[in-house]
Amino acid sequence: MPVILPMSDGREYQVKPQKIICLGLNYLEHIKENVTADAQRFKDEIPQEPILFAKTRNTLIGTGQPVIIPAFLQEYGFRTCRTDYEGELALIIGKPGKNIQADNAYKHILGFTCFNDVSQRNFQKHDKSGWYRGKSLDTFGPIGPRLVLLEEIGDPQNLKIQTRLNGRVVQDSNTCHMIFKIPETIAFISKNFSLEEGDLIVTGTPSGVGPLTPGDVVAVEIENIGVLENPVQAEA
Amino acid sequence: MPVILPMSDGREYQVKPQKIICLGLNYLEHIKENVTADAQRFKDEIPQEPILFAKTRNTLIGTGQPVIIPAFLQEYGFRTCRTDYEGELALIIGKPGKNIQADNAYKHILGFTCFNDVSQRNFQKHDKSGWYRGKSLDTFGPIGPRLVLLEEIGDPQNLKIQTRLNGRVVQDSNTCHMIFKIPETIAFISKNFSLEEGDLIVTGTPSGVGPLTPGDVVAVEIENIGVLENPVQAEA
Repeated sequence: MPVILPMSDGREYQVKPQKIICLGLNYLEHIKENVTADAQRFKDEIPQEPILFAKTRNTLIGTGQPVIIPAFLQEYGFRTCRTDYEGELALIIGKPGKNIQADNAYKHILGFTCFNDVSQRNFQKHDKSGWYRGKSLDTFGPIGPRLVLLEEIGDPQNLKIQTRLNGRVVQDSNTCHMIFKIPETIAFISKNFSLEEGDLIVTGTPSGVGPLTPGDVVAVEIENIGVLENPVQAEA
Repeated sequence: MPVILPMSDGREYQVKPQKIICLGLNYLEHIKENVTADAQRFKDEIPQEPILFAKTRNTLIGTGQPVIIPAFLQEYGFRTCRTDYEGELALIIGKPGKNIQADNAYKHILGFTCFNDVSQRNFQKHDKSGWYRGKSLDTFGPIGPRLVLLEEIGDPQNLKIQTRLNGRVVQDSNTCHMIFKIPETIAFISKNFSLEEGDLIVTGTPSGVGPLTPGDVVAVEIENIGVLENPVQAEA
């Protein structure tokens, strides 16, 4: 069942992307928390260009729907089996394009919403092929609560973004701190991949990521958009 | 434009997968060619479970359409800029499912076709997030020439598979040599991700992979299916 988002102009939007393209390590403070106590490694980790990975549509759920931690993770006998929240700003492509120039990029955006890039860290770290599986388990892509059109968002590069875990603030930043801003991100992605109407681009997470446990409630709030809130459940 | 495949029963099939899930390193001889001269490393490379990665729909082209090597690769100054062919058997899901049991897996398959998992090796090897970008450049997923229904394929685990580069045989194997057979592959994937009607599963490549150069013609032929043939061009 596709997620339906109310739009800021009163219409409804069916979320049915051909692609969900996400950015890794797009806030300096998030990179820093991954490599504390090693200044040289921190410097080496700052990306020279956007780091892209895919999520697939089986991840998408709306606000209020549960993030499900799969039962089979236990078969792996991970010493710590860690599934993290990551609050992020997502944008929806309105106009297809290839090799889009940065100064033309905003014309390709329909609007914005909140996204939680839920991430199974053991798979993300250990799968030989990279991040795909750990990022794409069913329900690992909460999106919503609504789609705010480009014309109504204000400055998308100056929005407060906050994640709360059971009401406690765990991520608290502003989209102004992205390393790769939205126009250059779209230019870079569309040099690699044709963008289609409906494609999602998810712009990376600030510092403060941490684990989810069944029973938690995780909320991602972005200024001018609203609150995306999801309970966390263990698979029955 | 979605690729249209003639079906073995006379109908037509629009290729519009929500997901394209591919297997890495699913033939022993292909693993061996990656790690020649190091027996212990060969042993370590044999996967204990299927290695999954994603391609996205922007890759899909039909038989006869050109694989385009992007111009911007030159900006990276790779010492060797290598884009490889990989001939593979693909299957199309007909019936959705989650946690599908291996002994029930064939009931979820609509049919089979040929696939060329074109792979930009520099990105695949060096992108921090894994294989996604190197596998998903536009036109890097030739598929076809037709869809053969499950009932008409014979034994999908005993099909000759051959790749020819400019008429010369470069891959020559049989689907009986897959490490993870189709039923256990479907069981494994559907434990991780819900499968939807139309999803593609691409089952890995035999030994003999090698580079493509503009001007080449690459053909993947699978017994009981046919020949998927594509010219290779440099981006203008």
